[in-house]
Amino acid sequence: MRMSKLFVRTLRDDPADAEVPSHRLLVRAGYVRRAAPGIYTWLPLGLRVLRNVERIVREEMDAIGAQEVEFPALLPREPYETTGRWNAYGSNMFRLKDRKGGDYLLGPTHEEMFTLLVKDMYASYKDLPLSLYQIQTKYRDEVRPRAGILRGREFVMKDSYSFDVDDAGLERAYQAHREAYIRIFDRFGFDYVIVAADSGAMGGSASEEFLAVAENGEDTYVRSPGGYAANVEAVTTPVPDPVPFENLPAAHAEKTPATPTIDTLVDLLNEAFPREDRPWGAADTLKNVIVMLRHPDGSREPLAIGLPGDRDVDTKRLEAQVAPAEVEAFIEADFAKISTLVKGYIGPGVLGSENASGIRYLTDPRVVEGTRWVTGADVDGSHVLDLVAGRDFTSDGTTEAATIRPGDPAPDGSGPLELARGIEMGHIFQLGRKYAEALGLKVLDENGKLVTVTMGSYGVGVSRAVAAIVENSHDEFGIVWPAEITPYDVHLIAAGKDEAVVAEAEKLYAELQAAGVDVLFDDRLGKVSPGVKFKDAELIGVPTIVVVGKGLVDGVVEVKDRKTGDRENIALGQIVARLTVRLPASAVS
Amino acid sequence: MRMSKLFVRTLRDDPADAEVPSHRLLVRAGYVRRAAPGIYTWLPLGLRVLRNVERIVREEMDAIGAQEVEFPALLPREPYETTGRWNAYGSNMFRLKDRKGGDYLLGPTHEEMFTLLVKDMYASYKDLPLSLYQIQTKYRDEVRPRAGILRGREFVMKDSYSFDVDDAGLERAYQAHREAYIRIFDRFGFDYVIVAADSGAMGGSASEEFLAVAENGEDTYVRSPGGYAANVEAVTTPVPDPVPFENLPAAHAEKTPATPTIDTLVDLLNEAFPREDRPWGAADTLKNVIVMLRHPDGSREPLAIGLPGDRDVDTKRLEAQVAPAEVEAFIEADFAKISTLVKGYIGPGVLGSENASGIRYLTDPRVVEGTRWVTGADVDGSHVLDLVAGRDFTSDGTTEAATIRPGDPAPDGSGPLELARGIEMGHIFQLGRKYAEALGLKVLDENGKLVTVTMGSYGVGVSRAVAAIVENSHDEFGIVWPAEITPYDVHLIAAGKDEAVVAEAEKLYAELQAAGVDVLFDDRLGKVSPGVKFKDAELIGVPTIVVVGKGLVDGVVEVKDRKTGDRENIALGQIVARLTVRLPASAVS
Repeated sequence: MRMSKLFVRTLRDDPADAEVPSHRLLVRAGYVRRAAPGIYTWLPLGLRVLRNVERIVREEMDAIGAQEVEFPALLPREPYETTGRWNAYGSNMFRLKDRKGGDYLLGPTHEEMFTLLVKDMYASYKDLPLSLYQIQTKYRDEVRPRAGILRGREFVMKDSYSFDVDDAGLERAYQAHREAYIRIFDRFGFDYVIVAADSGAMGGSASEEFLAVAENGEDTYVRSPGGYAANVEAVTTPVPDPVPFENLPAAHAEKTPATPTIDTLVDLLNEAFPREDRPWGAADTLKNVIVMLRHPDGSREPLAIGLPGDRDVDTKRLEAQVAPAEVEAFIEADFAKISTLVKGYIGPGVLGSENASGIRYLTDPRVVEGTRWVTGADVDGSHVLDLVAGRDFTSDGTTEAATIRPGDPAPDGSGPLELARGIEMGHIFQLGRKYAEALGLKVLDENGKLVTVTMGSYGVGVSRAVAAIVENSHDEFGIVWPAEITPYDVHLIAAGKDEAVVAEAEKLYAELQAAGVDVLFDDRLGKVSPGVKFKDAELIGVPTIVVVGKGLVDGVVEVKDRKTGDRENIALGQIVARLTVRLPASAVS
Repeated sequence: MRMSKLFVRTLRDDPADAEVPSHRLLVRAGYVRRAAPGIYTWLPLGLRVLRNVERIVREEMDAIGAQEVEFPALLPREPYETTGRWNAYGSNMFRLKDRKGGDYLLGPTHEEMFTLLVKDMYASYKDLPLSLYQIQTKYRDEVRPRAGILRGREFVMKDSYSFDVDDAGLERAYQAHREAYIRIFDRFGFDYVIVAADSGAMGGSASEEFLAVAENGEDTYVRSPGGYAANVEAVTTPVPDPVPFENLPAAHAEKTPATPTIDTLVDLLNEAFPREDRPWGAADTLKNVIVMLRHPDGSREPLAIGLPGDRDVDTKRLEAQVAPAEVEAFIEADFAKISTLVKGYIGPGVLGSENASGIRYLTDPRVVEGTRWVTGADVDGSHVLDLVAGRDFTSDGTTEAATIRPGDPAPDGSGPLELARGIEMGHIFQLGRKYAEALGLKVLDENGKLVTVTMGSYGVGVSRAVAAIVENSHDEFGIVWPAEITPYDVHLIAAGKDEAVVAEAEKLYAELQAAGVDVLFDDRLGKVSPGVKFKDAELIGVPTIVVVGKGLVDGVVEVKDRKTGDRENIALGQIVARLTVRLPASAVS
C-alpha cells in the first residue's frame, strides 16, 4: 500500500476528548475515528489491525475444537425475559421496537441464544462435549463511554460457550479455554495477569479474568507473594474471630461538636477522651455511608454501609455485590426525605430495616460480634463510644464494599496484597446450569435419563485488545506494534525527491512485495518532507522502518527497529533477504 | 472437519415457514437457523459459505483499488436528519434511543457516514479519486421478511462509495465498479443479468442492477431483442401522440347495471352498445384504482390511478414512483369516508385535486389528449362513453403504475419486451452531488476553488448471495455449491463399519488434508447407515463426493460429481493426485 493512496490523515494534535494514550494515538495515527459517543469507525489501518487480532483469536479457538457460528446482534426479547436479563441489564442494554411493536435488544452477550440453539439441535450426551464461538459486534449502553475503543458502546467480542453433561466435562472445557486464552494473550504480545474474578450479573461459580497490565486500566487487581491474584471486586476480607464482650463497658453517648468527618472526630477523641493503651485511630470508628441503589426496574433504594473509618466505600466492589443494581450518590434531596438521618452523625441506632430510618444496613466483615466502635449517635454533634457489635447493634448482613489497601492480608493467607491496575481483556466463567435450567437445555445421559447440561462462558474483548495493545506498547512518538498485530510488516520511506532515491525505493517496494512482505510505502512527493515521513512512521508504529535516502550513494539503506530505535545500514543487495528473515512467522505462513 | 464433530443436524422435513428452495435447503442442511422473523443465525457450514462470498467480494473490491473500512451499525440521527432520510426511511428503519434519550438508528445504508468521513479527512482534489467500501451487517425493518436470508431484517452487505471531483471521474469509478461486479457475479457462479434500475429513495441518476436469474425472484425485469434490459420498476411507457378530437362525439352517460368489473362492463358494451369497427375490449375502458399512500411521517393519502382496463396496477412499479411513501390498500372504511366515491363506477368526474372527492388523480401515459374512454359515471350502474381525455377530463399528472406485459414495446424502440424474474444482488448508482451537497463535502480544485464532490454508491447483497446461489444451483436432493463458494472441497464418506473401510477412509482424510484439500469427512459410526450419509452429502452439496466402501476390495474409491451425478472409480494410489487437480484455483492458492 502506498501512503499517497492510503485513506489516512495523521493528526499533529490530540483529539480533545482523548484521556489515554491508546485513544490519542489510534485517532492521531488514523486507525479509528469517532462516529458517536463510544461508537467508532475503523479506517483501513485500524481494520487491518482488528483483523489480525481476530485471526489470532480464531486460530486459537479452532485449535481447541471450538466451532465458529454467528448470531444476529438484533435479538428478540423472549429468551432474555425467560432468564430475567431483559430486566437485569437495566439501562446498559439497548432496547428497541420493530414496526409491529415487538421488543428487541442489541445483544450485549449471547448466553440465551447459544443455549436455545443447542437445545434446538442436540438431544444426547453423545453430542457433547461441544464448544461454539462467535466473533461479533456487541452493544452495551455504557453510562460513561470513554477512552475510545477501550470502553465503547459498539464493540467486537469473541464469546464462546461450552456444553457438557457433567462437572468434570465443564472443568475440562474451562481449562482448554484457559490455555487457549494464554496462547491468545501471549500472541497479542502484552503483559497480562490472570486473576480470580467476580462473576457479576452472569451467575455461575468459578471465574477468572485476563487483565492487560496498564496504568490507565479501569480494573484494579491484587497479588500476594504466595500467588493469590484477584480482581479487587472479588477479594474477600478475612473475617476476624468474634470477641467476648461480657466485661466491656456500656456504650455511652458523648458530645463531639463539629466532628462531621472521621479526621475531626479522631482528633477530638484523642483530646477529650484519650485512650490509655494507644491513641484513637480512624480504624476505631464505624463510618456509615449511605448510597442509592438503582434497580433494573428503575426503582431506587437507599443502602447504608457500615465500615471502619479508615476505609472508603469502593463503588466498583459494592456494585459487584449489589449487581444488577447500580450505585448512585445519596444526594441532599434524598437526605431531606428521611428525617431520622443526621448528616455527619449517622449511627446504627437508626439504620437497618427494623430501625427508625428503615434503610437496609450492611456492615463490613470486620464488624464482628464483640468489636467496639465509636460511631454517630444520630444526634447533631454527638457520637457513641464503646458501641459493641452484636450487643448494642446488629446489621442486615455483611458486604464487601470497603477499599482494599496495599498490605491487606490475602484471603487465603498467602501474605500481604499489592495493588495494580489492568484492562479486562478476557473473562472465563464456569456458568454451570443456570441458563440451561432456565431455558430447558437437557440431554439424555448414558442411562437414558434427561440431565441438565452444564455450561461455560468465555469472552475476549477483540476491539478492546487493539487499544490495550497500544496502551502496553507505545512511546512518546507513537505506537509500537507487536509483530503479529502490525498492519504492515515494513514501513518503507523514500527520503527525498532525488530521482535515484525514488527509483530505488520503487524497486525495493516491488521486490519486497514479491517476497511476500506486507509493505506500507511512503511514496509521497511534493511538500511532504523526509521529516514528516519519519514522524508519520513513528506514529503509525510498523515495527520495521526502511529508509531509502542518503545512504544510497554508498549502496546502503537504513533499517530502523521501531521499538528499540536501533538503526543499521544494510547493503541494497541484502535487504530483501534480511527483511524476509526478520519477518514474524505469521506473515510468511 | 468430521461429521461426528460438526455442529449440524440435517432435517428430513422442510421448515414450516419456508416458501423457496434456498430457504428450505439452507435450513434443512444446517447452514442457517432462524432466530426471529427475518433474523438468522449462521451455523458453522453457513458461516464458511458466507466467508467465501465475502472473500470474493473483498478481492474484487481491492483489485479496483477500493479501500476497506468499517462503520458502526449503530448510528446517530443527525446526519440522516440532515439529508432527510431519518424521515424518508419511514418504518423500514430500526430506530432506538440510548440511555440519555439520544436518537439512534441501525444503519440500512451508509451514504451519510461515508460522506462525513471523507469531508472530515480530505480537502483537496489531489486526494481524489477515492473509493471506500465495507462488508457489514445492516438492518432494514421489512414489512414482510421472507424467504429466509433472501430478504432478512439483519443482513450482510458490501457497500462502497466513490468520490470524484468531476463527472468524468464518477463515470470512471462507476465503470470500474461495474466491471468488478461482473467479476464478482461470474465467480459466484450463477446466471445474472444487468438491467437499468430505478434509483428509488437513494436519489441520483444512472443506476443499474445485477439480478440473479431466479423463478422465485421478487424482482421482475424485461429484455428486448435489441438489447434493452431494465427492472420492471424502471421501464417507461412510450407515450402515444395526441389524437385530434375536434370531430369526436360528445360524451354520454349510459345505464350499465351490474357492471362493477371490467369484464362485465365489456360484455355489456358489446351487447348494448356494439361498435361498428370491432368489438369493445378492456383496453377501451379507463379503470380507476384507488390506493392509500402511507408517507414516512405516518400520514395517509388516497391516490387514484387511471389506466387502461386491460392492465392492473403493479404495486412495485407504483411504489418506485411514490417512494418514500408506501402503498397500502384502500379499504372499505376508507371508501365510507368519501361519499362521492361510488364503488365499481368511479370516474374522472369526481377524481382529481380540483374535483368533488379531492383525491389526487394520476393517469397512465397512454391516456393522452384525444383518447376516448368508457369509464365510471360516478353513479351506481352507470358509465360514461366517449369520454375524451383533455376535452372532458384531466388528471393531476401521469405515472408509471401499470403492469408491463410480454410484447409491450421497449421504450428505446428496440422491440417487444419479454419478462423474467430475478433477485437483486447488486446495485450501482451514480449518486452525483446529492449527499455531498446536503452534508457540505467540498474540496479545492486545481484552481483553488471549492467544488462539491460527486459520488457513486454501490452495493452487493452478501448474505443474500448465499441464498441466491442456492436458488440458482440445487436439485431435488439438495444444494450444489459452485467451486468458489462450497464450504468444503471434498465430502468424504466412510460407507460401512468394516474396519478396512474405516481405516482407509481415515488414511485418505489425513492425506487429503496434508495435500491442502478442505475435507468434510463423514466418519459417523453407530446407527448412521451409508444411505443416510449419501443423503446428507447430497443435501449439503459439496461438489465432489468421495466414497470409501465396497470398491475397496478392488483397490478403488468412488468419486461422484455432485452436479452431474457422474461416478468414477479411482485407484487408491491416484485419488489424492486426482482430487488436487480437480480443486478450484481458490482452494490451492
